[in-house]
Amino acid sequence: MKSYRSFATCCVALLVVGSGLAGCQQLEAPATTPADVPAQAQAHTVASDTLLDTARQLFQPIPATVDKVRDQPLTEARVALGQSLFFDPRLSGSQTISCNSCHNLGTAGADNVVTSTGHGGQKGPRNSPTVYNSMFNAAQFWDGRAPDLKEQAKGPVQNPIEMNNTIERVHATLTSMPGYVEAFQAAFPGDKQPVSFENMAVAIEAFEATLNTPGSRFDDFLEGKGSLNEQERKGLSLFIDTGCVACHSGVNVGGQAYFAFGAVKRPASSVLPTSDKGRAAVTKDAADDFVFRAAPLRNVALTAPYFHSGQVWDLDDAIRVMAESQLGATLPEADVQAIAAFLRTLNGKAPQVTQPLLPASTSHTPRPL
Amino acid sequence: MKSYRSFATCCVALLVVGSGLAGCQQLEAPATTPADVPAQAQAHTVASDTLLDTARQLFQPIPATVDKVRDQPLTEARVALGQSLFFDPRLSGSQTISCNSCHNLGTAGADNVVTSTGHGGQKGPRNSPTVYNSMFNAAQFWDGRAPDLKEQAKGPVQNPIEMNNTIERVHATLTSMPGYVEAFQAAFPGDKQPVSFENMAVAIEAFEATLNTPGSRFDDFLEGKGSLNEQERKGLSLFIDTGCVACHSGVNVGGQAYFAFGAVKRPASSVLPTSDKGRAAVTKDAADDFVFRAAPLRNVALTAPYFHSGQVWDLDDAIRVMAESQLGATLPEADVQAIAAFLRTLNGKAPQVTQPLLPASTSHTPRPL
Repeated sequence: MKSYRSFATCCVALLVVGSGLAGCQQLEAPATTPADVPAQAQAHTVASDTLLDTARQLFQPIPATVDKVRDQPLTEARVALGQSLFFDPRLSGSQTISCNSCHNLGTAGADNVVTSTGHGGQKGPRNSPTVYNSMFNAAQFWDGRAPDLKEQAKGPVQNPIEMNNTIERVHATLTSMPGYVEAFQAAFPGDKQPVSFENMAVAIEAFEATLNTPGSRFDDFLEGKGSLNEQERKGLSLFIDTGCVACHSGVNVGGQAYFAFGAVKRPASSVLPTSDKGRAAVTKDAADDFVFRAAPLRNVALTAPYFHSGQVWDLDDAIRVMAESQLGATLPEADVQAIAAFLRTLNGKAPQVTQPLLPASTSHTPRPL
Repeated sequence: MKSYRSFATCCVALLVVGSGLAGCQQLEAPATTPADVPAQAQAHTVASDTLLDTARQLFQPIPATVDKVRDQPLTEARVALGQSLFFDPRLSGSQTISCNSCHNLGTAGADNVVTSTGHGGQKGPRNSPTVYNSMFNAAQFWDGRAPDLKEQAKGPVQNPIEMNNTIERVHATLTSMPGYVEAFQAAFPGDKQPVSFENMAVAIEAFEATLNTPGSRFDDFLEGKGSLNEQERKGLSLFIDTGCVACHSGVNVGGQAYFAFGAVKRPASSVLPTSDKGRAAVTKDAADDFVFRAAPLRNVALTAPYFHSGQVWDLDDAIRVMAESQLGATLPEADVQAIAAFLRTLNGKAPQVTQPLLPASTSHTPRPL
């Protein structure tokens, strides 16, 4: 996968973390503070809206439905299996950590702490990105080391400081429960060995491909079904004109390519610790030092703390860090507020997910470590 | 609360842990092994069934619906709030541990490990009991130190080795999110201070009162809607005739009173460690040394490992431990198998619960510890 380096003119909001939660019937996800709630949308005639025309060339709405991921169909059986696996803590060695522990569907698809807690209380090195809309990223992880969600799913399960399990133990665990054996058979009909670590990852990927948040106010704007207010339009204009869009575009408003963090000015070492070289650890190329995948910005207002280091809690601060480190600019406060107002229009509507009832462990299920 | 002591003639299955998972449409909870699945039910004429008559005097089915807990109504708003709180990791100091972490609705309402993992990876001293059907217990915790679910909910939140939070921080967390403030107002209309630690506990209790598992094969038997097979009937007869029922009766087949573990013969120190004196720590009465609340046995086949120490993984072994420690008896293998077969008829049907989308944190939300 090719790296695009130091793009000095780019992206005020580059590398702002993940994305996140969505509209919810029961408990509507609030804006950052009540005062931040956008005022009434301003009337704009779509026919004469050049901002909309420009935006449509740069961004695409999240599709309302998805029927496959890579070349894999999202069959009901496969998604249901993936849903069980996503919530099953027995994929971890301790049997207490599930995918949902760090990519919590209730809290914007992430855990919203600095870095995640893994096996035995160990802390991981990077902030957990949101699982929502992750299928629209060009690659997974902050350094893009997994090309797709299937490969991503295999990583944390085996990482000693995350879920701390092994392929052999996972296989033994899944084959120990008749309910899982039947679910794998239904999800992978015709497969000679339906229960496998590979198919576990395929099923998790299938479920994750259903975790998208269409219906944001920005998507309604793109689709001509709604408008943005004056401040939000100003923020969108700034986002485009100052160059953020060079890194943050497409369906996910980011997540498509790699850029150096600190292209113009190195941020504080707390935000960009020297110990984490980013993509260089993947490519083994010193030119990739401190290069990361541009963060997808869908639902970004709901997934603090920000950046791979998880050290910035406020969205406004994250915008300021980006402006200084990527553009060498100190933005006027009104511009920061306008960009933040635009970013809050990226909050979408998350699907309602049922907590799956999992197959019971048996006497053949490996014991927790 | 009165303790009933050393009841030497009692309960083969006394103190067998919790209860658990239930029938599920997607992934039916299997019996312990395929070989354990009950054979076809035997035909019995209900009119002449003295075993059924006896059972009806000792046990009651789990009601299909519940409309209040203590004197509190289960309003839709209160249950919805409690559901959010139950799944919200921000009730813990680290913001990574929720009620559902240790009382996982997907795995029989418990975590199914020896003892739970709390703040910073610390291990708790006792096995986590299931939350399912817990409203039918006379008191909560292994030592009954909380009279009801409302008081129970306050405990782990504040326990330094569990969720490690404080009343003040919880209050600050909940008031920081407009979504929660509105939800508390809706759940406690007319209350001058709807957002409070007390009301948090009341709401969690309301949600937990909906977490019941009616519709077990045993309940169908009690209600004349189904039958048990020969082995299960033998197990039920043994359960009654050997005296298990003296401690394990009522709706929850246990959970009603306190008894000494090791009444006749002290079990292995791994199963009954001398460091845990049980109810004596509550009553400060040495006569309560090693006294515990008789475990409710609903869904017990799904909640290994067993006992407060969580040291016994096999249901058959747990039955043997009970027989020896409470009756001084070594049961014939066929009797152990029959009692286990009966206990598996206590697996009920769990409600389908939607993963709630939680209010987003704000700049006023306390940071994770």
